[in-house]
Amino acid sequence: MYKKYKKIQRYFAHLLEPGTAESGLAKAVDVFITIIILLNITALVIDTVPDIPFFYKENFYFFELFTVVVFTLEYVLRIWIAPVTETYAGSRSPRLRFVTSFYGLIDLLAIMPFYLNYILGLNYYFLMVFRLFRLFKLFRYFTALQLLGRVFRAKFQELFFALFFIIIMLVLVSFAMYYVENKAQPDVFRSIPETMWWGIITLTTVGYGDMHPITPLGKFLGGIIALMGIGLFALPAGILAGGFSSELQKIADAEKQEKQKNICTCPHCGKEIHVDDL
Amino acid sequence: MYKKYKKIQRYFAHLLEPGTAESGLAKAVDVFITIIILLNITALVIDTVPDIPFFYKENFYFFELFTVVVFTLEYVLRIWIAPVTETYAGSRSPRLRFVTSFYGLIDLLAIMPFYLNYILGLNYYFLMVFRLFRLFKLFRYFTALQLLGRVFRAKFQELFFALFFIIIMLVLVSFAMYYVENKAQPDVFRSIPETMWWGIITLTTVGYGDMHPITPLGKFLGGIIALMGIGLFALPAGILAGGFSSELQKIADAEKQEKQKNICTCPHCGKEIHVDDL
Amino acid sequence: MYKKYKKIQRYFAHLLEPGTAESGLAKAVDVFITIIILLNITALVIDTVPDIPFFYKENFYFFELFTVVVFTLEYVLRIWIAPVTETYAGSRSPRLRFVTSFYGLIDLLAIMPFYLNYILGLNYYFLMVFRLFRLFKLFRYFTALQLLGRVFRAKFQELFFALFFIIIMLVLVSFAMYYVENKAQPDVFRSIPETMWWGIITLTTVGYGDMHPITPLGKFLGGIIALMGIGLFALPAGILAGGFSSELQKIADAEKQEKQKNICTCPHCGKEIHVDDL
Amino acid sequence: MYKKYKKIQRYFAHLLEPGTAESGLAKAVDVFITIIILLNITALVIDTVPDIPFFYKENFYFFELFTVVVFTLEYVLRIWIAPVTETYAGSRSPRLRFVTSFYGLIDLLAIMPFYLNYILGLNYYFLMVFRLFRLFKLFRYFTALQLLGRVFRAKFQELFFALFFIIIMLVLVSFAMYYVENKAQPDVFRSIPETMWWGIITLTTVGYGDMHPITPLGKFLGGIIALMGIGLFALPAGILAGGFSSELQKIADAEKQEKQKNICTCPHCGKEIHVDDL
Repeated sequence: MYKKYKKIQRYFAHLLEPGTAESGLAKAVDVFITIIILLNITALVIDTVPDIPFFYKENFYFFELFTVVVFTLEYVLRIWIAPVTETYAGSRSPRLRFVTSFYGLIDLLAIMPFYLNYILGLNYYFLMVFRLFRLFKLFRYFTALQLLGRVFRAKFQELFFALFFIIIMLVLVSFAMYYVENKAQPDVFRSIPETMWWGIITLTTVGYGDMHPITPLGKFLGGIIALMGIGLFALPAGILAGGFSSELQKIADAEKQEKQKNICTCPHCGKEIHVDDL
Repeated sequence: MYKKYKKIQRYFAHLLEPGTAESGLAKAVDVFITIIILLNITALVIDTVPDIPFFYKENFYFFELFTVVVFTLEYVLRIWIAPVTETYAGSRSPRLRFVTSFYGLIDLLAIMPFYLNYILGLNYYFLMVFRLFRLFKLFRYFTALQLLGRVFRAKFQELFFALFFIIIMLVLVSFAMYYVENKAQPDVFRSIPETMWWGIITLTTVGYGDMHPITPLGKFLGGIIALMGIGLFALPAGILAGGFSSELQKIADAEKQEKQKNICTCPHCGKEIHVDDL
Repeated sequence: MYKKYKKIQRYFAHLLEPGTAESGLAKAVDVFITIIILLNITALVIDTVPDIPFFYKENFYFFELFTVVVFTLEYVLRIWIAPVTETYAGSRSPRLRFVTSFYGLIDLLAIMPFYLNYILGLNYYFLMVFRLFRLFKLFRYFTALQLLGRVFRAKFQELFFALFFIIIMLVLVSFAMYYVENKAQPDVFRSIPETMWWGIITLTTVGYGDMHPITPLGKFLGGIIALMGIGLFALPAGILAGGFSSELQKIADAEKQEKQKNICTCPHCGKEIHVDDL
Repeated sequence: MYKKYKKIQRYFAHLLEPGTAESGLAKAVDVFITIIILLNITALVIDTVPDIPFFYKENFYFFELFTVVVFTLEYVLRIWIAPVTETYAGSRSPRLRFVTSFYGLIDLLAIMPFYLNYILGLNYYFLMVFRLFRLFKLFRYFTALQLLGRVFRAKFQELFFALFFIIIMLVLVSFAMYYVENKAQPDVFRSIPETMWWGIITLTTVGYGDMHPITPLGKFLGGIIALMGIGLFALPAGILAGGFSSELQKIADAEKQEKQKNICTCPHCGKEIHVDDL
């Protein structure tokens, strides 16, 4: 009896865990959940369009109901199968660890809005935003994103300092621009925080055009700041390019080392030595 | 008789196949077709200019006629010579393989609009767009573009995930911005899809200025999103820079390995030494 | 007596010098000064917002007073402890060297505005700008910024020539655009210096939209100039990416060299073999 | 007598040739000419400002006169000293070779406008533009720009194909956008050439905002095109980053090879061999 229970548990773990999924049904489950997530995000986006007639929007409620049933079932199953999954199999309380993990919390937040609304009768619109957490459920199925994540994590400190550097630059340029343009356009460059909006929009080269200097000195300064923006782009681009390059080098070096594991000859006794034996 | 037929066939293959073309006439054919393609694209572009008097546009019909004759001749010849070209020589049905290949389909689509219009009397303006496929005929003559293509293909997966990452980012920032700015500018940030237009134009740092936040919180959020746009640029730039760098490394390594294969002679004892032994 | 004096001096040096700070109190001092600096910059920024009622701004005076007391105390202490700090311990007149150093001058400029205002009764608003120098006091606590600084310094010459190249490009494109657009828009492209504003805003891809060509020739030229702007971005990005890549290579090479210094033992004859000999 | 003539000629060559200039006077001549060039460019730029009173502009005439005298003297001297300069010393007709060289032509074009105007009484404003050639005289003094130039030349073919790729992309996106937006904004997206202006301004992420799609389909397409613009930036940035990286690798490899020129031992006879001897 217990053996059969374990077998069913393992079968569901096989169905729900991405990556290990090789059977047709396991793949179908992955695709099914991914499609529901994408449809949910699409529904959330379309729901805000005022031109869509009420009739269509009403159908969203039934889709929401369907989604919550599927995601609740998925959540309950994932708690149940936690002890037999690779990630939590070794820990003492695998179910608690799953519930408090990143994906466990995301799974809960993805269904919570509906229950809070249903049981507690809370304001629907405020909770609507929480449904966006369903987007993060997608990450489970894109493990390859971790490749990009590794570069980001390896370069985190450098990127952080680049950000800090950018903020200092932003404060400095906004100070300068405020004192230069404030007299000519007191209603546009009204204060330093408002000038910082101009500063960030110029440094990032977005350039909406809602604020721009009109005095010759302001234009001269603005030109220099716009040029600084190029350096601003070059900084993280350079850091990340270096990161990708070194990450690729690592892989290439590992492959090279694998190749060099051939057999050498000892210069003293002339016998063959496997490099691994040294 | 058959021998002479084969000889003529091979001569035309020599004339039409780019790359192998080394004789003056073969080069002239390449240049001639390239010029016709470029003139066709130019004609397509100019045809839409309303200021150009009807008189000039009428001449376009004769040029179209001329183009179709040349391209039809080229297409028929290419089908005929398929069995003796390097690409399709080995296959069982070389002509069918050419017709269903990328360039075969492009060659057909380049002349089809005219025949459909002439024979079936279909609407000319709708078919006009198909004539744009003539542009793709150009690719045949720029084999060096495959160099760039190799980097793109090698980095395809990473670029795809970067794109996926960008779309998730776009959805998130548009959600946030919609809830922040919708009340202040209900006619501008009307819905999330319309906010996504703002989002992509800001994340790509284009910044038309037709939509921009006006509330302090919206500007703060907009500044962060604009900064994210820098990372957005750095991501594919970093991936591609890494790709070019590793592609160049491969070439350099291949050259290095070639050099290291030499056997030298010891100037003292005259025996051969492998450079690797030193 | 003197011994105890030295001991106290060394204790204060331990408290104020960043990096060497490992005790809890020393870290607290670092965090305390960093927070005061950040609050000062925030106060400077907020002070320019016209909507904030006078009541709140009045409190800024007390915060200013508090800041000046803390920074004056810090400055006096730093002069006192100079002879026992790592940086100035070896020099003949350590206190003078500290006072004339970058950080010494920044520390003085950070408090000077208050004293000049108080003692000499100078105009407060003019001196306000000098308080911005407090921002630079932050650099002392972010030694890791030196990492980025090293890349910048290594690539300084190349970046300088890139800048020089950009300015020449700017002059050339502004000349061309002025002669093309001046007749069509005499009030917009009024002179070359004003066209240079358009030039820099286009080359940096900011694109405010306050100035743009309207003639066909001007648009054609503007398109080419906008394309040049891409090269403009690629230039420093390429230089910096190369810089980061070579800086990382250096670190990797140093690690590699460290590894290769090992002497191994042949498992067959027991003699030592240098890894390089294999 | 001839010996003294040669000595004077060599002295002037020493004064005028940049790079070899090490004496104080030779450096002063370099700086003097550089300053005159920069002042001339500044005068050309300022001359177009309508607000500057006529009085100041009149002085420009005297400066122009002074410049022409100096540059004519320089030109004549450079022709005279050509036979003893490093560049042209070996050739049969050094003076002719200098006159027809890039710098020789630039030197002539820098003074020609004045003489043409004075002798032939041609229109001053048309010739004014030619005075811009004085800018190119600057290149003589910035030989280090050749470093950047080398990367550009090494990557020329790749950059050319990137440009070709961009133009094809531009034609395609402009076609698509024209057919999507023309009906909604017939006065804005009037023709494909006018849509190409929008296309290049969007692909380069400049985004003036004078033209932008307003239909949902146009905005969707515009978003994709703006995203393509990121790839557009990444392409030359990646190429140049790879170029800088490989150029640096070359230098590093050359240094490495220099180091490895140590003495090896022949594995057959045990004698020392210098790697260069192999």
